[in-house]
Amino acid sequence: MNTHLPKSAATNQTWSQRFETALHPAIARFNASIGFDIELIEYDLTGSIAHAQMLAHTGIITQEEAQQLVSGLEQIRQEYRNGQFTPGIEAEDVHFAVERRLTEIVGDAGKKLHTARSRNDQVGTDIRLYLRHRIQEIQAQIEQMQTVLLDLAEQNIETLIPGYTHLQRAQPLSLAHHLLAYFEMLQRDKERLGDVYKRVNISPLGSGALAGTTFPIDRHYTAKLLEFDGVYANSLDGVSDRDFAIEFLAAASIIMVHLSRLSEEVILWASEEFSFVKLKDSCATGSSIMPQKKNPDVPELVRGKTGRVCGHLQALLVLMKGLPLAYNKDLQEDKEALFDAVRTVRASLEAMTILFAEGLEFRTPRLAQAVAEDFSNATDVADYLATKGVPFREAYNLVGKVVKTCIATGKLLKDLTLAEWQELHPAFDTDIYQAIAPHQVVAARNSYGGTGFEQVRKALATAREKMQQS
Amino acid sequence: MNTHLPKSAATNQTWSQRFETALHPAIARFNASIGFDIELIEYDLTGSIAHAQMLAHTGIITQEEAQQLVSGLEQIRQEYRNGQFTPGIEAEDVHFAVERRLTEIVGDAGKKLHTARSRNDQVGTDIRLYLRHRIQEIQAQIEQMQTVLLDLAEQNIETLIPGYTHLQRAQPLSLAHHLLAYFEMLQRDKERLGDVYKRVNISPLGSGALAGTTFPIDRHYTAKLLEFDGVYANSLDGVSDRDFAIEFLAAASIIMVHLSRLSEEVILWASEEFSFVKLKDSCATGSSIMPQKKNPDVPELVRGKTGRVCGHLQALLVLMKGLPLAYNKDLQEDKEALFDAVRTVRASLEAMTILFAEGLEFRTPRLAQAVAEDFSNATDVADYLATKGVPFREAYNLVGKVVKTCIATGKLLKDLTLAEWQELHPAFDTDIYQAIAPHQVVAARNSYGGTGFEQVRKALATAREKMQQS
Amino acid sequence: MNTHLPKSAATNQTWSQRFETALHPAIARFNASIGFDIELIEYDLTGSIAHAQMLAHTGIITQEEAQQLVSGLEQIRQEYRNGQFTPGIEAEDVHFAVERRLTEIVGDAGKKLHTARSRNDQVGTDIRLYLRHRIQEIQAQIEQMQTVLLDLAEQNIETLIPGYTHLQRAQPLSLAHHLLAYFEMLQRDKERLGDVYKRVNISPLGSGALAGTTFPIDRHYTAKLLEFDGVYANSLDGVSDRDFAIEFLAAASIIMVHLSRLSEEVILWASEEFSFVKLKDSCATGSSIMPQKKNPDVPELVRGKTGRVCGHLQALLVLMKGLPLAYNKDLQEDKEALFDAVRTVRASLEAMTILFAEGLEFRTPRLAQAVAEDFSNATDVADYLATKGVPFREAYNLVGKVVKTCIATGKLLKDLTLAEWQELHPAFDTDIYQAIAPHQVVAARNSYGGTGFEQVRKALATAREKMQQS
Amino acid sequence: MNTHLPKSAATNQTWSQRFETALHPAIARFNASIGFDIELIEYDLTGSIAHAQMLAHTGIITQEEAQQLVSGLEQIRQEYRNGQFTPGIEAEDVHFAVERRLTEIVGDAGKKLHTARSRNDQVGTDIRLYLRHRIQEIQAQIEQMQTVLLDLAEQNIETLIPGYTHLQRAQPLSLAHHLLAYFEMLQRDKERLGDVYKRVNISPLGSGALAGTTFPIDRHYTAKLLEFDGVYANSLDGVSDRDFAIEFLAAASIIMVHLSRLSEEVILWASEEFSFVKLKDSCATGSSIMPQKKNPDVPELVRGKTGRVCGHLQALLVLMKGLPLAYNKDLQEDKEALFDAVRTVRASLEAMTILFAEGLEFRTPRLAQAVAEDFSNATDVADYLATKGVPFREAYNLVGKVVKTCIATGKLLKDLTLAEWQELHPAFDTDIYQAIAPHQVVAARNSYGGTGFEQVRKALATAREKMQQS
Repeated sequence: MNTHLPKSAATNQTWSQRFETALHPAIARFNASIGFDIELIEYDLTGSIAHAQMLAHTGIITQEEAQQLVSGLEQIRQEYRNGQFTPGIEAEDVHFAVERRLTEIVGDAGKKLHTARSRNDQVGTDIRLYLRHRIQEIQAQIEQMQTVLLDLAEQNIETLIPGYTHLQRAQPLSLAHHLLAYFEMLQRDKERLGDVYKRVNISPLGSGALAGTTFPIDRHYTAKLLEFDGVYANSLDGVSDRDFAIEFLAAASIIMVHLSRLSEEVILWASEEFSFVKLKDSCATGSSIMPQKKNPDVPELVRGKTGRVCGHLQALLVLMKGLPLAYNKDLQEDKEALFDAVRTVRASLEAMTILFAEGLEFRTPRLAQAVAEDFSNATDVADYLATKGVPFREAYNLVGKVVKTCIATGKLLKDLTLAEWQELHPAFDTDIYQAIAPHQVVAARNSYGGTGFEQVRKALATAREKMQQS
Repeated sequence: MNTHLPKSAATNQTWSQRFETALHPAIARFNASIGFDIELIEYDLTGSIAHAQMLAHTGIITQEEAQQLVSGLEQIRQEYRNGQFTPGIEAEDVHFAVERRLTEIVGDAGKKLHTARSRNDQVGTDIRLYLRHRIQEIQAQIEQMQTVLLDLAEQNIETLIPGYTHLQRAQPLSLAHHLLAYFEMLQRDKERLGDVYKRVNISPLGSGALAGTTFPIDRHYTAKLLEFDGVYANSLDGVSDRDFAIEFLAAASIIMVHLSRLSEEVILWASEEFSFVKLKDSCATGSSIMPQKKNPDVPELVRGKTGRVCGHLQALLVLMKGLPLAYNKDLQEDKEALFDAVRTVRASLEAMTILFAEGLEFRTPRLAQAVAEDFSNATDVADYLATKGVPFREAYNLVGKVVKTCIATGKLLKDLTLAEWQELHPAFDTDIYQAIAPHQVVAARNSYGGTGFEQVRKALATAREKMQQS
Repeated sequence: MNTHLPKSAATNQTWSQRFETALHPAIARFNASIGFDIELIEYDLTGSIAHAQMLAHTGIITQEEAQQLVSGLEQIRQEYRNGQFTPGIEAEDVHFAVERRLTEIVGDAGKKLHTARSRNDQVGTDIRLYLRHRIQEIQAQIEQMQTVLLDLAEQNIETLIPGYTHLQRAQPLSLAHHLLAYFEMLQRDKERLGDVYKRVNISPLGSGALAGTTFPIDRHYTAKLLEFDGVYANSLDGVSDRDFAIEFLAAASIIMVHLSRLSEEVILWASEEFSFVKLKDSCATGSSIMPQKKNPDVPELVRGKTGRVCGHLQALLVLMKGLPLAYNKDLQEDKEALFDAVRTVRASLEAMTILFAEGLEFRTPRLAQAVAEDFSNATDVADYLATKGVPFREAYNLVGKVVKTCIATGKLLKDLTLAEWQELHPAFDTDIYQAIAPHQVVAARNSYGGTGFEQVRKALATAREKMQQS
Repeated sequence: MNTHLPKSAATNQTWSQRFETALHPAIARFNASIGFDIELIEYDLTGSIAHAQMLAHTGIITQEEAQQLVSGLEQIRQEYRNGQFTPGIEAEDVHFAVERRLTEIVGDAGKKLHTARSRNDQVGTDIRLYLRHRIQEIQAQIEQMQTVLLDLAEQNIETLIPGYTHLQRAQPLSLAHHLLAYFEMLQRDKERLGDVYKRVNISPLGSGALAGTTFPIDRHYTAKLLEFDGVYANSLDGVSDRDFAIEFLAAASIIMVHLSRLSEEVILWASEEFSFVKLKDSCATGSSIMPQKKNPDVPELVRGKTGRVCGHLQALLVLMKGLPLAYNKDLQEDKEALFDAVRTVRASLEAMTILFAEGLEFRTPRLAQAVAEDFSNATDVADYLATKGVPFREAYNLVGKVVKTCIATGKLLKDLTLAEWQELHPAFDTDIYQAIAPHQVVAARNSYGGTGFEQVRKALATAREKMQQS
């Protein structure tokens, strides 16, 4: 659209005056976006109100006209909220639907609203207002989930859980430490969204169709009214930029990847083989005939929905690839991907938060047993010897040998008698049993960011502080 | 779901007998698929009818029971078509909605329908019935578009249009030849869908939850009733395979890529600079103040929608990656991507078919001028000399020289006088003018599949034959 | 490239005669493809030999000239194989490298090779020859892996393994049945590649730069010499079609998805918690200090490499989106994605085949224990009652109750005494123990495609037959 | 890898002491990463030097030992730079290759280097050091390209070029304004990379295999030596986070999308139909026989390479989806995607910068003609009337009518006589000719960020300032 006048639907287009035949109905349907862009209506109204106020502020229209427009737009908002205003396919898009209703309400003055504005900068403004709002909501949801994780971590500092690399047991961990890893991922997600926000919250309003306008508008005024942090410095860029949407979808994809990893873990933990968690009835579905079976639907769906958001990201990259400046109709296709990604991320965060808040229970006896039944404390035997002055390499070779023997005889390290230990090396003493007890094995990893309880407590405190600052 | 009994919604789950607390309402909403899987209802009914008939055929239920089930299911079909049956969120999914309504209609006998069946093989059956139907519809739409292209080609065999490589003019072409390139792409699309169809049209019904069933079912019987070409040989594979959906999405992505290429060309052709086509009012939108401007919304939207389908393909690949056997709830996420891709491909094919059938007009005078005004006939000068016995290399070097001179003097090859030609080489004679006339330049490319008119006529005839066979 | 003469490198371009300045060295580097398209050299030679023979066959060049060209090309093949011919960056691309060397060997006659051919149809021919060869190799590798799976299945028909839905234990399975699910996936992969092959094995040779050629070539002759199944019917389509590459990448992505699922399972099975398989030293890496730990690197890498191939698929879709006809330089970017996908799929199939052939050992005692320790036989209790005439619904409700009681008292179903059974329902008799024994539970799922041993034996036999036919 | 000792290659693994059989050679090849991770060698050496210094600083090893290690590592750096150190496949990966060479140089002390470190945190450190360096290089390249665009803009403030929406001419623009739109996109790219950098430049060193270490290390000390901005707060997160790589690939994809848009425009501009630019010989390839034809290979390749980077982004998302904590071997697959994306972005920026610096020339006479020959000044007629007091709507309707008449009579607006104008409306006067002259049409769009020359000059000045600040 490249004029100051509204583009409109098949039956009623201002441009159709010239056109001898109407749009083919299938084409009108194909072009229409009202089916999904109605989601923008509140933002469209807000943007239009600011535009009307600016038009009066700069003398382009009178204060009375502005007043009329603003009250008409507010009336539409009420009508929409009350369900009295429900534009159909004939409206082509939400912007035209609003304008038409506005003209019904305030008469021809309604047509002045589009002075010094184009559909291109208008829709760009709406979508940014929408997205910045959604980003704030998602950030708030992330914080809720972080709080749930922190609370759970707080209760489980000394709960031990096997730690894995290659899904092989590697070291026992504080369960709190494990949960805090996700706190950190979510913290990055929140910060990343903050960076996206900086580039979302820039106003394209006043860019016109592509080249600016001949009217003496004040773009900084509307930007201020709409609480944008800045204005696009170039009108062509203003109407054709969709970086912010791609960037949001990339951030959203990373959030989903994080949730998919946590989901995978819950699914593993809920399996018969792991049995680390019990899913509660409020968050799992089951089978009448196999009452022991509870399906971890929530994490499965979240894991599956990851693809959806990554797909939307790819969709927008394909969409934008190779588009010449400035506005192209292709850009209309940005919305559904964006809206669905927003809904998916929000629903996934909500469901996972509920799951961790009330939907699962760690089986602590099973966890305690798990960390006691393997050789993930083998490294600590070598460390023990090293602290007793045994040369490193010698210590390591020895441990390899003892583990092998244990496996052959079906024993764990803790099952060896002191005599057996001392036969291996005279440096062993009774304190070996404490040294290889899982609790001590965890406690000993006391390096910054490590799983040692002291570190975990510090990390928790720091996390709580971060939460309070945000 | 891994039992023979239906899984069901929060208020009414058979498995909830055991569960002390109900599903969290947000989780119930998160799990529910009724919002989109209602699209499967007709296929679900058809599948269930076949299942009921098989149960009677094998004596698992009585003929009377089957009769009751079938007429109940047919009643639901009518109710759905009449808008009397509109299940809401409380139904969880379309399968449960149908079962519940069936039980209302036929009483407890309704519950027998799910004997020897699981949700896993049921939903797999529904989605294959849905997709094979959609594939047939898309193939029919492809044929419509092919017919439109053939008709247009038929009218434009001797219409010339510049041919491009690197978007640089390379050789003049028969417009029909250009259009036939897209006929070929669509032909491959149709064949490719035919190959996908082979793998879609296999019945998973009777795979049970994952392992088959203890009932003496006859899977080949239901497959025959449902006109499947075969049955899954392995029950685990039957419930967890989504290859067919990925494969369809890949074929759909390629269709969209083809349409995006054609769209790009229409957008170029409709530009002021090319001016090769005029968009008609029925298929373009415009501006009241710039009546000369018609926006090619249809091809722009189609080009943009390409990303959407590629995104759905990626979504399903991400979804399936790393899922262990057999059924996982993640698979529920296959549907929306598939449904939206189907709708997008269908709407895009429809819009492009209308566009070519009635929405654009080639500006033949402009095309005639375009092919006459450049040096894309330079190769033919060399060929001319070669046929007169001038050694190849000499001929080529000469042509390079003459074009250079022409550019310097602002002339085209056709503007050279015979004297000028003969000065360059004595072999030139008056027939050079005919040899480099665009029509002859096109005619001369008479190799199989080339743009020569004779070849194009043959290609058209062959294309018509292919269409009749399909 | 749109002429019959070769395009060439910076120092030596035929087209550079006209150009006053040479290519900027960074641009020459940027344009060059020799770094990767050298992989096509054998196919380029083969294609050129056929082209030379056709030129003689149609009288465009003499038999002597053709002879000279063919022997020159064969000499280059030998030189390349011996490592004597190693073109560098100055060669721009493999085609030019070959032509230049050919001219060194056979003199100016070498320049005749490019008569009636363009770089565009030449490279299209090469890449199709390359890909059809690779498809055959991959199909052979798939068969090797299928054979390994069949052999392993054959040995494990009566080995039981838990079957899962939602990663929850659902039904015990024959391990052979589980392995055969992957046999089926691979079978589809092989067939799918066969369908791709049909569209790969079409000759674009003779399409020229875009429009065909004025020379009286015989495209069917070269197609026959090169064992193509057909020729492109449209020259524009012939030089600009990359569907076959996208289609191959989609099939390759699905192969990787299948391998990623199997990988996920091996990784789970090799975990301490599952302990279903033991990785052998030839296929796992470990740690000197934790000798019990063996990392499943192979399946982890395969799972990770899945993304790589899906990424290449998306790369080509993005590449092709919106390209106008006919050849565009963008198409040069098809090769690296294709080559890397081929290498990745081949290496992954090889590694997984080795892993299953010799790299893992199922821990049968652990498997036997696993299937005996849960309630996945609960359904069979209901079936037992049903066969004794107890109404279905009553039977099911009863089972739910008994499982609940068992869980509360820490018992399994097999631990109930006959008295306890009969207290639940008088229909129970001593044969209940046999009915719920895992072996019988598996055997009872004797529906077609089910896990019952009889079915598995039939499935194995059918699979062997399929293998012999292919 | 989850121990403090190095993992190593088939012939020489420390862990192989326990293993009875060696790795299968094909598996060893499959696992090896030396073929690509050699790119990290300088960063590996730098990271190891810092680690050695920290070990001495904390007293874990002696100052003498640290000195020995550092000088050995520096020697390896020299050997690598001189081409004396070229590890082959037997080295498995770059880290092991370095350690082995170090042990050759400094003896057993070399083995102390890996104390309190794991392969997992080591490789994480290397890749972050690599990427932060590359980000800085890419930012510098962006600035070079921005400078080239600014210089070109500076020379073309009053050069007019048609502005497009829907690829239909909409408004004439200052060419500088058009170029500045890309300046803005690149500016965002630079800032976005700055945000990515914040999350790249965090040290995972000291996270150990997953849980931290029992040694009294000082992670902040190594972070300071390596100029990291912070350290990972959680060891599990430290070894398993690849957000930074995904985030970089998203930013890289957006850069490529921007370059693809500019490429598309250059390709259009270089076409016969647009003829807005002339490609110079240093940046285009051609054809000996069609000397007028110059192929825009650079923008075509850049446009094509966009898919490649988007593909790598998707590859990493697929890779990470559903991975449980902590380190999994899948993560090894992050490198090639990242390295290739870095190379592609760098080469594309370089080639496009050269193209705009010296490879194209705007055809200003053609541009001047283009902006004068259409109706893109129609809006300004309405604006003219509006300023003369004619009611808006009336003015617009009038303009629609006059344009229609012009089209019918083959005239442009500037061709109308004053009499004709006044017949339309008496308000027209001789100043109408000035008002609709393209230069004035551009000048009049003087809103902030618009194409008016005054605004463009301000925008240029602001852009120069931004460049000086960065």
